[in-house]
Amino acid sequence: LKTSGSDRSVVNVIQYGLGSIGMACARAVAATPGLRLVGAVDVDPEKIGRSLARLLDLPPKGFRGIAVRASLAEAMAGRDAHVAMHTTVSSLGAVVPQIQDCLRAGLAVVSSTEELAFPSRTDPEPARRLDVAAKRARRAAIGTGVNPGFIMDLIPIVASGASLGVRKILVRRVLDAGRRRAPFQKKVGVGMAPADVRRRLAEESMGHVGLLDSALLIAAACGIEIDEVRKSGAPVLATRPMRSALGRVARGKVIGLRQNLSCRRKGREVIRMEMVMVLGAKDPRDESFIDGSPRLHLRWEGGVHGDAATIATLINAIPRALTAPPGLHNILTLPIPRTFSPLLSPQP
Amino acid sequence: LKTSGSDRSVVNVIQYGLGSIGMACARAVAATPGLRLVGAVDVDPEKIGRSLARLLDLPPKGFRGIAVRASLAEAMAGRDAHVAMHTTVSSLGAVVPQIQDCLRAGLAVVSSTEELAFPSRTDPEPARRLDVAAKRARRAAIGTGVNPGFIMDLIPIVASGASLGVRKILVRRVLDAGRRRAPFQKKVGVGMAPADVRRRLAEESMGHVGLLDSALLIAAACGIEIDEVRKSGAPVLATRPMRSALGRVARGKVIGLRQNLSCRRKGREVIRMEMVMVLGAKDPRDESFIDGSPRLHLRWEGGVHGDAATIATLINAIPRALTAPPGLHNILTLPIPRTFSPLLSPQP
Repeated sequence: LKTSGSDRSVVNVIQYGLGSIGMACARAVAATPGLRLVGAVDVDPEKIGRSLARLLDLPPKGFRGIAVRASLAEAMAGRDAHVAMHTTVSSLGAVVPQIQDCLRAGLAVVSSTEELAFPSRTDPEPARRLDVAAKRARRAAIGTGVNPGFIMDLIPIVASGASLGVRKILVRRVLDAGRRRAPFQKKVGVGMAPADVRRRLAEESMGHVGLLDSALLIAAACGIEIDEVRKSGAPVLATRPMRSALGRVARGKVIGLRQNLSCRRKGREVIRMEMVMVLGAKDPRDESFIDGSPRLHLRWEGGVHGDAATIATLINAIPRALTAPPGLHNILTLPIPRTFSPLLSPQP
Repeated sequence: LKTSGSDRSVVNVIQYGLGSIGMACARAVAATPGLRLVGAVDVDPEKIGRSLARLLDLPPKGFRGIAVRASLAEAMAGRDAHVAMHTTVSSLGAVVPQIQDCLRAGLAVVSSTEELAFPSRTDPEPARRLDVAAKRARRAAIGTGVNPGFIMDLIPIVASGASLGVRKILVRRVLDAGRRRAPFQKKVGVGMAPADVRRRLAEESMGHVGLLDSALLIAAACGIEIDEVRKSGAPVLATRPMRSALGRVARGKVIGLRQNLSCRRKGREVIRMEMVMVLGAKDPRDESFIDGSPRLHLRWEGGVHGDAATIATLINAIPRALTAPPGLHNILTLPIPRTFSPLLSPQP
């Protein structure tokens, strides 16, 4: 039995953005058979001009002296590239020119920008511009990642595919912040005063920002109408002194967040999203509950690790970005995800 | 917030095949807003000519006197139909003319035929003929269901989308046969003598037939090469007298089956499928283990109920069958599944 041919070709990748996710992504590209890292772009003057192999702490073999460049044009000069792994910032407005640039250069685009997961939901104009640019360039662009893009939207949507007459979808993500990096712990308020965290949650300058995008993706996919959205969030406080990557946390200080989003129709809850990101959270897990016929309860034991799975979802989107019809895509318009296979050819 | 329009249209469905799954499917079509049952076909002389409403034990309102017909042409006469729910037999060879008939009549086709889940895997010729017929008719046809088509292939494939460097995929389905109908219990040998079951397993005339299809779908999706497949199966015996839907089972008689499939490459197991269908099986569940980076363990608490979920996956495939490009599809070529939404319009 042979399920695949031996006609393997290599996809040439430009890494666009070398923050912590971008660096990890570039390392994963370098480590994945079927992918070749051929260039990298970043705005950081500390990184521009540096050897990519040295920056990534990888052996120089295969990198042919590639250096980090300040612009895509410089990074691509003299190189044949197929796809941009775009990992810069979260805001759609900020990334539109970057992604347009990639498309004009003939690259398919896989982006980690959270607001690209469902870009038409609040402000359709930047999404429309990207769609036009992609169609003009005859390339596909997709925003993805683990959350939004997978664990709190794609997974409950797929699970709902085995149920009918769905009345409600509940999605829960419980993370032990103690197992995550210091920047993550900072993001969830570890060590801060409760009042500061409450204020920042109220003004939405803290916490996970993708819950609404994920909920609206679920609603759009499953034809669930929503007339009211309620958000809530609160800090979780240390009941005893605790250790963290940011140092010792005193009793009464913040050790993480709870965030909820409730989507209703005519007063009845139809979608509920719950997120717990707390130092030492018990039973870390991801869950989806589909209240339909049949009722379904899906559980990822231990949860899906944010960083490693984010890198995986981005790399794994490459074949779909290369074979999708031109335009701006989201998880609803593409075939099912799957782990990267080196057996798919790049676009001619 | 409004995630969907009010422009709802109805998809007209012909139920092709009225066995136990077909009857349940027809009832689900009748109960689902956005779908309308407009005709039914069956070969059973006991059913032909009977009122569909009476056969399904549903109120006659909305059925406009529809009767079961012996041929698709009679069932469609004077009716506007968009899609055929095809639920007849498992064998690809037997269903090719039936599905060609539906396509020629201008219907998209959703079929429960197990061998359509991955029809090109062993005998590509019938699949090619159906693909040609579908393209000529400018309609899409898809084979789906819960197993194969969802729980032991689509789900582990989707899960692998959050992992990289996957070394092995393990899929396990544990069913309590005691919670299933008598025909299912009969299918897994309940009450039979162990020697009879061993013989029938050896000649492959008993047990679940989709394990290889599911394994090869996973392999194709994830680019996993396989050079050896080992199948095994054994009866599970009653250690005490037990009740079943088929009557009392004496100690030493069969209460169900274990079936395993091991796919290897160069002697190393790369895909493993395990299925347990036993009266009173402990902790019924569906599980997928992805041995990659990160490692993932996905678990459906209580398992996914076969009959109800089969109906759901079939109904839920209708919008994708109506909007897919013409041709014969499988789960790898279509967008992600989702519960049925009445918001999608039928093909013009």
